[in-house]
This record gives sequence, structure tokens and C-alpha cells, in this order.
Amino acid sequence: MTKDFIHKVKIYYEDTDAAGVVYYANYLKFLERARSEIIYSLGLNNKKLLTDHNTLIIVKSCNIKYKKPAKFEDVLTINSRLKLISKVSFTMIQIIKRDSEIISDAEVVLVTVNNLGKPVRIPEVLLKSFKKII
Amino acid sequence: MTKDFIHKVKIYYEDTDAAGVVYYANYLKFLERARSEIIYSLGLNNKKLLTDHNTLIIVKSCNIKYKKPAKFEDVLTINSRLKLISKVSFTMIQIIKRDSEIISDAEVVLVTVNNLGKPVRIPEVLLKSFKKII
Amino acid sequence: MTKDFIHKVKIYYEDTDAAGVVYYANYLKFLERARSEIIYSLGLNNKKLLTDHNTLIIVKSCNIKYKKPAKFEDVLTINSRLKLISKVSFTMIQIIKRDSEIISDAEVVLVTVNNLGKPVRIPEVLLKSFKKII
Amino acid sequence: MTKDFIHKVKIYYEDTDAAGVVYYANYLKFLERARSEIIYSLGLNNKKLLTDHNTLIIVKSCNIKYKKPAKFEDVLTINSRLKLISKVSFTMIQIIKRDSEIISDAEVVLVTVNNLGKPVRIPEVLLKSFKKII
Repeated sequence: MTKDFIHKVKIYYEDTDAAGVVYYANYLKFLERARSEIIYSLGLNNKKLLTDHNTLIIVKSCNIKYKKPAKFEDVLTINSRLKLISKVSFTMIQIIKRDSEIISDAEVVLVTVNNLGKPVRIPEVLLKSFKKII
Repeated sequence: MTKDFIHKVKIYYEDTDAAGVVYYANYLKFLERARSEIIYSLGLNNKKLLTDHNTLIIVKSCNIKYKKPAKFEDVLTINSRLKLISKVSFTMIQIIKRDSEIISDAEVVLVTVNNLGKPVRIPEVLLKSFKKII
Repeated sequence: MTKDFIHKVKIYYEDTDAAGVVYYANYLKFLERARSEIIYSLGLNNKKLLTDHNTLIIVKSCNIKYKKPAKFEDVLTINSRLKLISKVSFTMIQIIKRDSEIISDAEVVLVTVNNLGKPVRIPEVLLKSFKKII
Repeated sequence: MTKDFIHKVKIYYEDTDAAGVVYYANYLKFLERARSEIIYSLGLNNKKLLTDHNTLIIVKSCNIKYKKPAKFEDVLTINSRLKLISKVSFTMIQIIKRDSEIISDAEVVLVTVNNLGKPVRIPEVLLKSFKKII
């Protein structure tokens, strides 16, 4: 059963640029915050994954589409959903909205590597959690 | 005749994260710097485009693939090439390298809008320059 | 009666650097988020100040001391207090803590300017709110 | 004999905010880039300092004054000068200008720590270089 994760972000000055809107790279920060919060909600954290499982989650690709600009002092909702999992990678769909309006949507592929950057299998503890929410 | 534009960036502390590598969103900053430098090399700038032509260039989509991590104090080269132009959008291929090694590559679609965010045709002055380098 | 405002921030990858700690410039982002939240808690916001009162709040100086490094996945508390107000400027003391440990403290002087950047008096609506919390 | 170090930065979209000017925290990035370039000009780098001398340079305090706003597409010059050195810390004066106009000036105190964050003496190789430029 697919589960959607919701994370909210507020737009501060730091997020905007001289065009008066959120700078396009900063949406990737929001996506990463939302993904980190999913990890926390599963009872895990990145530090524990590294210390106990010698595993880092890294982004392999990010395909983001910008639909509408977000603005200073907006409150955005990031809706994240696991789309695919294999033994070594997983794919997330992340949609950024302001109320019901889509600001941006992204497909992000993530892989797990060890502390030397070598690809490794997704740790069992993470894989098990993922299987419950896909 | 396709022309490649080269822009170099040095990796400072601000670009890296606690994983010891360049933070994934920051590559989009490098891509934008490289695109701005192309605009400058064509004798234009973003301020002039807005003031004289009521035009802003905005990113419509960015599909970026992360191949190898860049590290603190690396010097990276961004190789940018115009792939497609229409009357209202253009597509760039941007490849980030450390020496001959590909760090990341991206396909970025850009559109032109007016100061109200409404899509407009690419200004003639820009379109003419673009046609010389594709 | 002096009032302390509390704002919490969580440390994500974007906030850290290759030294494994929060990058020194990023604390200024947290301070600004905390100050924005104070403005909101007073029933105001930066957009309204600009639209209704032709006023922007800008930082005139920031004297920040770094006591201990904050780390990835820390939760920090920013304790902000108004120290001084005049007709054209105000001074805040902002202390960043992890539990009871001081990470950093800052004295920030802010002034109000109009949309052309010219110094103006603090709008009455803001001044009145400030007088209640100092 | 005091020596001034010059570093130039160009203002890209990433550096600005919705107020149309450079975001106040981002000046600290420019200051850090300028300081890194001084280290490089002395034939050293941060990686070597850590590997060969188990030393990291960290900021202890930063007192920055904002005089004029810098804007999108400005080119700024950072003029850095060593003011004081002791066995465990050094102080720099860093002035950011647009042409002859002062945008911002800062006094930054830096200390050296080992990989565990414990204060250590400035490595001899760095101290000797510093003594030549103060």
C-alpha cells in the first residue's frame, strides 16, 4: 500500500532570488529535507545508517519540472512517495504544492554507497521499512 | 555549427556537505553560473534582457545525473552546448567534469517570460545569437 | 518586559560542509528565519510591511561568535530578544543553542529602508509591537 | 610589511534574494572564498593542512557591517589583510567593494583546531607565511 509523506517548508529570504521567486536549485534542498524526514519517520537517521550499517544514501539522478514559481513567505507542501525499490536503488516521486497548485514535481533516483563511495545493497532495516510503504 | 562554452568553478567549503562531497543541489548553481556566462559572452546580460526586452529566462526543467562526487578544493569544468531552440524555449546540455572524468551531466530546458511571468517569445537579439552557436 | 522568542531549526545536509559541521554563513540564515518568525508572531509579514508601509527591514551589522560547532541532524534552538529600539533601528541578541549548550551568539542591528533603499522611520505598527516586547 | 590580497566575485542569481540584493549571509561565503584563495596563494591548501598538519582553520567570530547593497550581476572585489597573529589565532580585515564604493567590511577572527575540534597552535608552515604578509 503506497504511503504519501507530507513535509511543509516556509519560504524565507534565503530561498529566493532577485527575480522575486524561489531560486531553482533551492527546491532540491526542500526535496532532500522531505526525504530526510521520511528516514526519521521510519525510526532511522543518516548518522545511524552510516555508523551501524556503513551506508550513505546518495542521489543518482533528479528530473525536476518547474510548473509555477513559489514566492517569498509562501508555505509549500512536499508530497513524497516511493515509486520503485530494488536491492540497490529506489525511486521517489516528490511533488511540491502551494495549496492545491503544483509548483514543481520531481523524480529522484537514490542509491546506497558505503563510506568509500562504493555501491552497496540497501540495508535490510531500510528495505523492510520501504516495503511497508510502497 | 555547435559551439561549446566552457566555465570553470572551484569548490569552496560553501559547496560541500557533511558527506565530504559537493551537495547535490549546488551543481545547479554551477550550471546557472555557466549559463549566465554564456549570456555575457554574447554581449548581453540578464538586467538588459529585463529592462530592454521585458524578458526573464527561467528554467522549465532540469534532468541531472550524478556520476561521480566532486570534492572540496576540486576545480570543475562545465561544458555547455545549445541542443535545441524554438521561438519560446531552448534546451542546453551541460556536462560537469573534473579533468576528463564526468562528474555530472544535465539537460536543462529554459523558457522566456515577461516581468509578470507570462511566456513570451525569445527576444530577437538572443535568438540571433543562439542561431550562430547551435 | 523583555520577551524571548524561540525558534527551532533542524540541521539538514544543505546546512553542513566538508568539515562535518554547520557552515559558518548558514547560522545567519537561521538567525534570519527566527527574526522573520518574530515578525509573523506580531501579526505582520515582510510583504505587508513593503506593500502597506513601503518598508523593508535590512541588516546593518552582525557580530556573531562561534562557540561550538553544530552538526548534521542536530536540532537547534534560537533564542531572540530585542535589546534596543530607536526610531530608525533596533538591535537583537540571538543565541543559538543545542539543548543547554551555546553554539553561537550574535548581536544584530537592523534598520528600516524604503523600496529605494533610503533609511526611513520604523513604521508605527512595528514600533508599537516592539515596545510591548522590550 | 602588510600585504593586501585581492579576490573578485561575480554576483549570480544564487547570491541574491527577493529584495533584489545580495542576501546578507552570502557575503560570508565571499569572505571565505577570499580567505581560501590566500591559503592557496601561500602554496598551501585546506586538505594539506588537515592531512599533513592535522589542522583545520575555523572561524571564531565575524563582525560584519553592511554599508551598501550589492546587486545582481555586480562584480565585487574583496580586499583582505592580516591584522593580528598569535600562536593560536589570527584576525583578518576584509573589505568588500564595488569599484571604489564600500559594500561591506568585516573583522574575522580565526583559530586552528585539530580533527577532533581541539584548539591547536597554528602550524609552523602557516605561521611563517603569515609573518611575511603582516
